[in-house]
Amino acid sequence: MEYKYPDDSLMLHTDAYQINMVQTYWSQGIQNRKAVFEVFFRKLPFENGYAIFAGLERIINFLENLHFSDSDLEYLASLGSYSPEFLAYLKAWRFTGTVRSAREGEVMFGNEPLLQVEACLADAQLVETALLNIINYQTLIATKAARIRSIVQDDGIMEFGTRRAQEMSAALWGTRAAYIGGFDATSNVRAGKLFGIPIAGTHAHSLVQTYRNDYEAFKAYAQTHKDVVFLLDTYDTLKSGILTAIKVAKEMGDKINFIGVRIDSGDMAYISKQVRKQLDKAGFPDAKIFASNDLDEKTIMNLKMQHAKIDVWGVGTKLITAYDQPALGAVYKMVSIEDQHGQMVDTIKLSNNAEKVSTPGKKQVWRIRRNTDGKSEGDYIALWDEDPQHEKSLHMFHPNYTYISKEVVDFNARPILVEIFRDGKLVYDQPTLEEIKAYSAKSLESLWEEYRRDLNPQDYPVDLSQRAYDHKMNMIHDVRNYVNALEIKLEEEV
Amino acid sequence: MEYKYPDDSLMLHTDAYQINMVQTYWSQGIQNRKAVFEVFFRKLPFENGYAIFAGLERIINFLENLHFSDSDLEYLASLGSYSPEFLAYLKAWRFTGTVRSAREGEVMFGNEPLLQVEACLADAQLVETALLNIINYQTLIATKAARIRSIVQDDGIMEFGTRRAQEMSAALWGTRAAYIGGFDATSNVRAGKLFGIPIAGTHAHSLVQTYRNDYEAFKAYAQTHKDVVFLLDTYDTLKSGILTAIKVAKEMGDKINFIGVRIDSGDMAYISKQVRKQLDKAGFPDAKIFASNDLDEKTIMNLKMQHAKIDVWGVGTKLITAYDQPALGAVYKMVSIEDQHGQMVDTIKLSNNAEKVSTPGKKQVWRIRRNTDGKSEGDYIALWDEDPQHEKSLHMFHPNYTYISKEVVDFNARPILVEIFRDGKLVYDQPTLEEIKAYSAKSLESLWEEYRRDLNPQDYPVDLSQRAYDHKMNMIHDVRNYVNALEIKLEEEV
Repeated sequence: MEYKYPDDSLMLHTDAYQINMVQTYWSQGIQNRKAVFEVFFRKLPFENGYAIFAGLERIINFLENLHFSDSDLEYLASLGSYSPEFLAYLKAWRFTGTVRSAREGEVMFGNEPLLQVEACLADAQLVETALLNIINYQTLIATKAARIRSIVQDDGIMEFGTRRAQEMSAALWGTRAAYIGGFDATSNVRAGKLFGIPIAGTHAHSLVQTYRNDYEAFKAYAQTHKDVVFLLDTYDTLKSGILTAIKVAKEMGDKINFIGVRIDSGDMAYISKQVRKQLDKAGFPDAKIFASNDLDEKTIMNLKMQHAKIDVWGVGTKLITAYDQPALGAVYKMVSIEDQHGQMVDTIKLSNNAEKVSTPGKKQVWRIRRNTDGKSEGDYIALWDEDPQHEKSLHMFHPNYTYISKEVVDFNARPILVEIFRDGKLVYDQPTLEEIKAYSAKSLESLWEEYRRDLNPQDYPVDLSQRAYDHKMNMIHDVRNYVNALEIKLEEEV
Repeated sequence: MEYKYPDDSLMLHTDAYQINMVQTYWSQGIQNRKAVFEVFFRKLPFENGYAIFAGLERIINFLENLHFSDSDLEYLASLGSYSPEFLAYLKAWRFTGTVRSAREGEVMFGNEPLLQVEACLADAQLVETALLNIINYQTLIATKAARIRSIVQDDGIMEFGTRRAQEMSAALWGTRAAYIGGFDATSNVRAGKLFGIPIAGTHAHSLVQTYRNDYEAFKAYAQTHKDVVFLLDTYDTLKSGILTAIKVAKEMGDKINFIGVRIDSGDMAYISKQVRKQLDKAGFPDAKIFASNDLDEKTIMNLKMQHAKIDVWGVGTKLITAYDQPALGAVYKMVSIEDQHGQMVDTIKLSNNAEKVSTPGKKQVWRIRRNTDGKSEGDYIALWDEDPQHEKSLHMFHPNYTYISKEVVDFNARPILVEIFRDGKLVYDQPTLEEIKAYSAKSLESLWEEYRRDLNPQDYPVDLSQRAYDHKMNMIHDVRNYVNALEIKLEEEV
């Protein structure tokens, strides 16, 4: 939408209340008070056993050089609710906070910080909405992709969803997330250009309609391309498509790489077996069968159970929109704030629902692995000044059902949140996309398969340290007492 | 992602096969053959009775000045599968086609053209993916928004979904679509800037956490803003939030516009009634109650049935992701193509599924209304050279169950597709967003309420003219015969 304003920026990609709160802080001179916010989701998507964290590259790109452009400021001024002095403050504003984050491709779980912003109040509020928007979508799609990868095993999988994506940037960043989660290629050419993802695609039904028969269309395509995959179902897959594909492949011989054929409709199990037979009979045992038609992990698993002869899966709508759960609910909660005396005090958000109460205090996530086989024992969330690395034995217990507990010895504790920005300066050495993809696969491998399975996975332990737990319980207790006393006082007053 | 390439464009926001097909056409010298493609979806989303067409402004913006940038061409060259001559052709390429479309805000139905591209083969293929991507998402969200509007009736509704949207452009264009479909405002500041949509939002829980109690936070906000809505549930809605809000509102008196309070968790029905009582008792009968918490048309209807005292609904995730059906399946099908003799011939795409067979020929959608009361009798899809406007009587029949039919007299026939681009030149006088929003409401009003209801609406008639129907049946017949004869021939050959 840069067309309306040459200097349009993503600075206003935020909720109005963020700017309104910053106006309050600025008016009261407390906009530079230090705060710590943490991003986490409560429930894993798709009833999956893990999530694949993604979005960090986009966040880095967003935060670098973030500022209010002239047209942004002119728009805010036009609203009549911000003073010229406040707008001047915004004009000079730059992000100077510290950001710590999980690495892209890391497996992550519910109720643990994925990312932490330690910044002045203004900075922390002005970036919240965009950070959540980015993390929620990319983490969702990387996780969905990993589910599909786990079902197809070593088959090829390609992302074909651009036309059904929720607008353009979802198509672009979604296919990058899918690549991280285990996809092999995309049809989106811009994603190929910007991220180096392999692109794939040969022809559509319209090619066959242009030539008005399979033969002329396949021949024309084969004469003008080296790598060839013929789409079989424009008129009739078995009566015309596959027979014509074989005919053209034979005629063209070594002049083309006859990679295979694609089926886009009909009974995939039956048709793929018939097509396989024809290809084998014709002397093309290496020709691959591509399938695409509203596929997801459930339909693919079903087709595999029926021994469908499909080698490469093109997945569109159901992946790129995360069709069965199109949103991840990550939130951004304040866990600590500087008070009027310059002291950091921890904060909590209560809720009638016990599981929605936030965990106060700046925290680190430690991934606890057994030294014997490198498998994860669980995640251990500790207050920032704790260091479980040097403990001999760790008491790990369920944060709600505390009687579920274990003692872990002979372990390795790895901190998950790493520093990305320090005081507004990028200090993170960004991995390449290929490295992220490999990291994601390795991260998944470290999990017991009981956490990785598609259906009814075991709950991976995400535990609080004893200190973090006690701190939370004490704060709940204190706030409850305070609120109850307050009610009596207020009812007398109002 | 402009950061990597200063000249990055949306030209490569397409599927790889589009460029590969164009290479075939160009190599064979037929890239300038004229073709007609039409966009349509088969099934209405959400089991709704209508869709609200949206996306045209974005399409106009996309098509204007569309071209391959230098970095786009360098990337394509790096793939090694396109010749320098073909890349030179792409470098000079500009969109010179004719586009006809429904107006934004028009109610539309399944199996009728929403948009028509009449262009040379290259042009028609190179824009397909982006056009579908744009129409599918915006039409989906405008329709979802209209459903929510129909349930809230005259209450306020605000779009609050940016953090849960599927990436940034979905948040931006989705909120514009929601506004067209009947929403009143958005929290997305950039949408306010770019589209002039009213923006809304006051403060989050973090404001209360910063001051560590409701009173100081509300007071600080009220001292620094004129329009005030207090968020009640950071610690306890009834024990602290509402009582404190009243206390501060009384203290501030005329210094603020005490618009109301917002509830974001808990039992909305119960809490809203308690809050209403407190506000009324305290002398604030005009203060409004805002609610936000995973709302959609179903939860809102339910809350209304329970007489919840909610005046303004903030809707986020469920709207902006179209949670219960996150994709619309519009497709782009070739209906006519110039042959080697320069004659236009109509084309069809067959399928084993009768409802998936495309309707051949360039078509217009005529909306048939009774002169007596202006209500719609149905849509009448006719071949391009037909003109039902001057018919005395129209035979309208169901395209699958042809015995369902009626004769319509004393009617008005209005063509739905209007010219947007003629030979690449924009010829459409674009309405303002406010005009589009008003048009959408008017368009909906022209439908009988039986088509508009939320649950189990009647099927709105979308009929083919007798000529369009006969043409389709003849083509199916011809292609079937051709394919059957071909099979015998091919089986002998291969």
